[in-house]
Amino acid sequence: MKAVVIHAAKDLRIEEREELAPGSGQVEVQIEAGGICGSDLHYYNHGGFGTVRLREPMILGHEVAGTIKALGGGVSRFAVGDRVAVSPSRPCGSCAFCQCGQQNHCLNMRFYGSAMPMPHIQGAFSQRLVAEEWQCHKIADRVSVNEAALAEPFAVTLHAVARAGSLLGKRVLVTGCGPIGALAIIAARVHGAREVVATDVMDGVLEKAQSIGADRVINVAENADRLTAYAANKGHFDVQFEASGNALAVRSGLEVLKPRSVLVQLGLGGDVSIPQNLVVAKEIEMRGTFRFHEEFGLAVDIINAGRVDLKPLLTGVFPLEEAVAAFETAGDRNRSMKVQLSF
Amino acid sequence: MKAVVIHAAKDLRIEEREELAPGSGQVEVQIEAGGICGSDLHYYNHGGFGTVRLREPMILGHEVAGTIKALGGGVSRFAVGDRVAVSPSRPCGSCAFCQCGQQNHCLNMRFYGSAMPMPHIQGAFSQRLVAEEWQCHKIADRVSVNEAALAEPFAVTLHAVARAGSLLGKRVLVTGCGPIGALAIIAARVHGAREVVATDVMDGVLEKAQSIGADRVINVAENADRLTAYAANKGHFDVQFEASGNALAVRSGLEVLKPRSVLVQLGLGGDVSIPQNLVVAKEIEMRGTFRFHEEFGLAVDIINAGRVDLKPLLTGVFPLEEAVAAFETAGDRNRSMKVQLSF
Amino acid sequence: MKAVVIHAAKDLRIEEREELAPGSGQVEVQIEAGGICGSDLHYYNHGGFGTVRLREPMILGHEVAGTIKALGGGVSRFAVGDRVAVSPSRPCGSCAFCQCGQQNHCLNMRFYGSAMPMPHIQGAFSQRLVAEEWQCHKIADRVSVNEAALAEPFAVTLHAVARAGSLLGKRVLVTGCGPIGALAIIAARVHGAREVVATDVMDGVLEKAQSIGADRVINVAENADRLTAYAANKGHFDVQFEASGNALAVRSGLEVLKPRSVLVQLGLGGDVSIPQNLVVAKEIEMRGTFRFHEEFGLAVDIINAGRVDLKPLLTGVFPLEEAVAAFETAGDRNRSMKVQLSF
Amino acid sequence: MKAVVIHAAKDLRIEEREELAPGSGQVEVQIEAGGICGSDLHYYNHGGFGTVRLREPMILGHEVAGTIKALGGGVSRFAVGDRVAVSPSRPCGSCAFCQCGQQNHCLNMRFYGSAMPMPHIQGAFSQRLVAEEWQCHKIADRVSVNEAALAEPFAVTLHAVARAGSLLGKRVLVTGCGPIGALAIIAARVHGAREVVATDVMDGVLEKAQSIGADRVINVAENADRLTAYAANKGHFDVQFEASGNALAVRSGLEVLKPRSVLVQLGLGGDVSIPQNLVVAKEIEMRGTFRFHEEFGLAVDIINAGRVDLKPLLTGVFPLEEAVAAFETAGDRNRSMKVQLSF
Repeated sequence: MKAVVIHAAKDLRIEEREELAPGSGQVEVQIEAGGICGSDLHYYNHGGFGTVRLREPMILGHEVAGTIKALGGGVSRFAVGDRVAVSPSRPCGSCAFCQCGQQNHCLNMRFYGSAMPMPHIQGAFSQRLVAEEWQCHKIADRVSVNEAALAEPFAVTLHAVARAGSLLGKRVLVTGCGPIGALAIIAARVHGAREVVATDVMDGVLEKAQSIGADRVINVAENADRLTAYAANKGHFDVQFEASGNALAVRSGLEVLKPRSVLVQLGLGGDVSIPQNLVVAKEIEMRGTFRFHEEFGLAVDIINAGRVDLKPLLTGVFPLEEAVAAFETAGDRNRSMKVQLSF
Repeated sequence: MKAVVIHAAKDLRIEEREELAPGSGQVEVQIEAGGICGSDLHYYNHGGFGTVRLREPMILGHEVAGTIKALGGGVSRFAVGDRVAVSPSRPCGSCAFCQCGQQNHCLNMRFYGSAMPMPHIQGAFSQRLVAEEWQCHKIADRVSVNEAALAEPFAVTLHAVARAGSLLGKRVLVTGCGPIGALAIIAARVHGAREVVATDVMDGVLEKAQSIGADRVINVAENADRLTAYAANKGHFDVQFEASGNALAVRSGLEVLKPRSVLVQLGLGGDVSIPQNLVVAKEIEMRGTFRFHEEFGLAVDIINAGRVDLKPLLTGVFPLEEAVAAFETAGDRNRSMKVQLSF
Repeated sequence: MKAVVIHAAKDLRIEEREELAPGSGQVEVQIEAGGICGSDLHYYNHGGFGTVRLREPMILGHEVAGTIKALGGGVSRFAVGDRVAVSPSRPCGSCAFCQCGQQNHCLNMRFYGSAMPMPHIQGAFSQRLVAEEWQCHKIADRVSVNEAALAEPFAVTLHAVARAGSLLGKRVLVTGCGPIGALAIIAARVHGAREVVATDVMDGVLEKAQSIGADRVINVAENADRLTAYAANKGHFDVQFEASGNALAVRSGLEVLKPRSVLVQLGLGGDVSIPQNLVVAKEIEMRGTFRFHEEFGLAVDIINAGRVDLKPLLTGVFPLEEAVAAFETAGDRNRSMKVQLSF
Repeated sequence: MKAVVIHAAKDLRIEEREELAPGSGQVEVQIEAGGICGSDLHYYNHGGFGTVRLREPMILGHEVAGTIKALGGGVSRFAVGDRVAVSPSRPCGSCAFCQCGQQNHCLNMRFYGSAMPMPHIQGAFSQRLVAEEWQCHKIADRVSVNEAALAEPFAVTLHAVARAGSLLGKRVLVTGCGPIGALAIIAARVHGAREVVATDVMDGVLEKAQSIGADRVINVAENADRLTAYAANKGHFDVQFEASGNALAVRSGLEVLKPRSVLVQLGLGGDVSIPQNLVVAKEIEMRGTFRFHEEFGLAVDIINAGRVDLKPLLTGVFPLEEAVAAFETAGDRNRSMKVQLSF
């Protein structure tokens, strides 16, 4: 079978790997759609991020869906032919964090496509994938594998919404409208946000943000004052989903957030300078949010029920052979929201 | 009557002010003890803090206690001769924040000794003070006015503990053991913290921290590794009370805090650079805490009941005439924890 | 002007009342739609409920909307001709509960149409109503006054959802599908409930429940076993909205609720026998929910934005003259969901 | 070795059982103190409780402490001679509830001395007990095995306090001052309760309640009005720990609890009639609390640190041979708080 393997920055290869047979409690999935994520792009463009560096070749990818081709022993929830979204999150189940329901902080996490441990955790961009039964979630007939492969980033934003607490009556600011920001808009909207204002520095993504549910969009590169107007009376927003990784977005968010509001920070970044006096004087809560756990199944349920439509986020699907072109396209925020591979 | 008036940095004067008579619902208090706070020191040393600058002479002081000398009309809860601690917090009661129980964010707050609005809000370092009945809290016979004047900074730390949520079973880190850090240790201890580790860069304050309730103290200037040892397995502490205002204290705290833990930031500071990746990957919550509201009465109750002993924090009491010496002493962390004036 | 006045059980009269002029900060509203609520029906059918008894004639009604006809001094948010929903909730703003954001527990509440205090608080079923500016919420052009008059019971259910906490990922049981249960389904759905199962003993209301958003409905008079099947593995539901006031609904809910789940009890009832061992062994939380405060404005916002469609709940609109027929119809659960009067 | 075996109501025997050798990860503990709990008394007096009935002989007991006599393979945290308190709670670690940190709701729980499953789960009242290493918690030198054996019921009340949320500033009512009520007073006090009022119907236990930390005690059999005086202004208490299992205690608690307060129900009982209108109109939360999980280790930590003194709760220690006398004494609320066996 073929797999998408990163060797070093800008050195992406399609390679042959041996197929594995599913063991007890496992299934073999023919992968049919795989979305390219920001972390995949970091490996592709920079060979890693922060202190995490590629030290051996690694299959990329963790946003995948496909069709079950074979069942290992004892598998009862699926039949061959079922189409499934596969969660890339594989917590150990027995460490202190798993035992208190914080599986996303598992001390022995084996998340697809991560160069953090050595040997690296191989990813899911391959034609066949052997996965645990519990990683798989059946998708409804009317849902395409491409939409199903969006379950993973959608789960990230559902977890972010879970971190924010109830959105009933809440006014929400989303800063940064790339794939994660856009999905955060959808996730906030479907969980009852009273108002959603979205910012970015590109008109194209803002148009998309508005079409999928933002009540108002502001290009802060051109009209920063439209955002700062919300600073009156100590601020307007109850919740900010910060998906830009930009220090200015944090800073301007703190100005327009109300006292006792919550800033949910998505995405790993480097050091950020924050105005501590605003955090203190307005008693703002800055909460990190990291991956997801039970939200993966929830994402599939919501997609299956048709309660959201994620298809508008899909910019294009490239065949496996054109993986390099796919990664180049995915890296261009002007042109693309979410790019996927077909296998 | 005499009052302690700041005119500019290092220009502190004892001046005569006219006595006022208590109006309806008010009492006249003979101030007998007044503690010097960090914000008083900022006015004294720098003429302000951040963008807040002295623009006219201002009476300093907001940590006061004394004896009621006269009652205005309709006052029923007090008698002349009662000794009281006086809350410096005077929210309007009718703005949107007051109406949702967030009086510390009142849009029209008149907190004693603040140069933020113009005209400035005069402080409480004067021989007589006319206060609202509801600002006053009776102190028990066995409690001295000096201990009672510690109710205000104690209330600040009680509010910080309230912001942290229940401390049942929680391991607590306190960074910075000046008066606020020390009171945070006491406040955390009396609300059930499982373990309290305190850090500072001066052995003197650390000895005090240990004597008032810390289980362990670490001089991070000399033995930073003793703190970083807590970083194993993603961290050890559930809650950090950050009372140093030092970026390094925030950074080292984030390293030893567990996933889903809470960093409560006390004190107004400037810009602080934080490692956003730690906040995100460990899903830490950084919560500002600002002043107090109902915690003032709680502070007096706890002091009255003898459930805490704040007296060890009192370094010295200076007569009004030696106010300058008092401020100089208060500003020397090596020599003093809390310095008060007598009137 | 004419008003709908209850004198005693089954003694409902249309009477003339004097029109009042709006004072400072007030508006005069021409009432155009008024919904009949369960408490109105209690006064009509029984002359009160529990220990609350009619002791003088009282205008009924608190679910009203209409058009502004005159402005008192200082009113700036409205113009004559604006159509508004009017909140019946008038807290004092200064008692201890108002000052901590619990206005629905105001010690001096003046809620329209309540025989609890003496003299009674007159209701809003009159052709003209003088209301405070802050009670009024402008309705969008596309929204009818009849839908707007549903803002009040919808606010009740939004508050119930607020009491339940975030519904992200939650499986919800609604017991009793009268107007409040039906609105709870809509309120839960628009705030992201993962699954909604509704029960009642009448097929007609269950059909309605399914059409407005329940995923599944169960007639527990006929198929109680379909509900009890959810009791496996300690239960299935995370949240129950109990809107039937029936002890059996509480009991069967406790059996199918999961450990650490929440039962939100709507509606005032009498004594209810509950199986305490289930509450303890599953650590269930039974939370009362009572009226609303900020949720009234939220209800109007959600209706205005078209995020819900409440019109299917409207059974019929009767002219003022046929008020008795309207009350008789409203009292017949077989025939009607929500009955309104026009004025 | 000898064990305390219940065969039927009032049929308690001292019998020989075979000693087991500790397996991998296990330790052998010489039991030295064992406290008699309410559920032990139910088996002794009634042969069970509710629908749970003895169907075969069962060793009783789950509040035990002793000395480690032998180590199984791989045990690293203990040495022979260590004195330990042994948690009776043995969750499976892998069911859905264990995986979300709700081990006390484990679907496969093997709690010592429970006749719920068949075969019954044998208890810990035996001279030797083989336990998992993780069940054991080392006790400090200055702590007696008798005090250590109180860790289990103390953990029950610590969990109850955890269920109540932060007690900072909270006024607490404890109804029923048997061993659990008394420990709830201590647990609430050490976690910062502002005020503790305790009720019972016996003066003896109330004297004990006052001596261990209640601010005020009320004999509600004689002076019920002293409690109802707290009902003014919608109530006085923020939290009630209900440890009497008495319907009147629930009812009178609801009257004196404030709006939005929390009633934590301890202890398994039968059906209880509650005034639903109070729960609704005051939006009270009734929360069940059941056993404990991480609170067992916390209990030992708090006892070890000397932050509480549980010794006053110990009425007497009976030798194993006098087990029947011990059970008879334990069942007499007039004479005894906590009775233990020595082995």
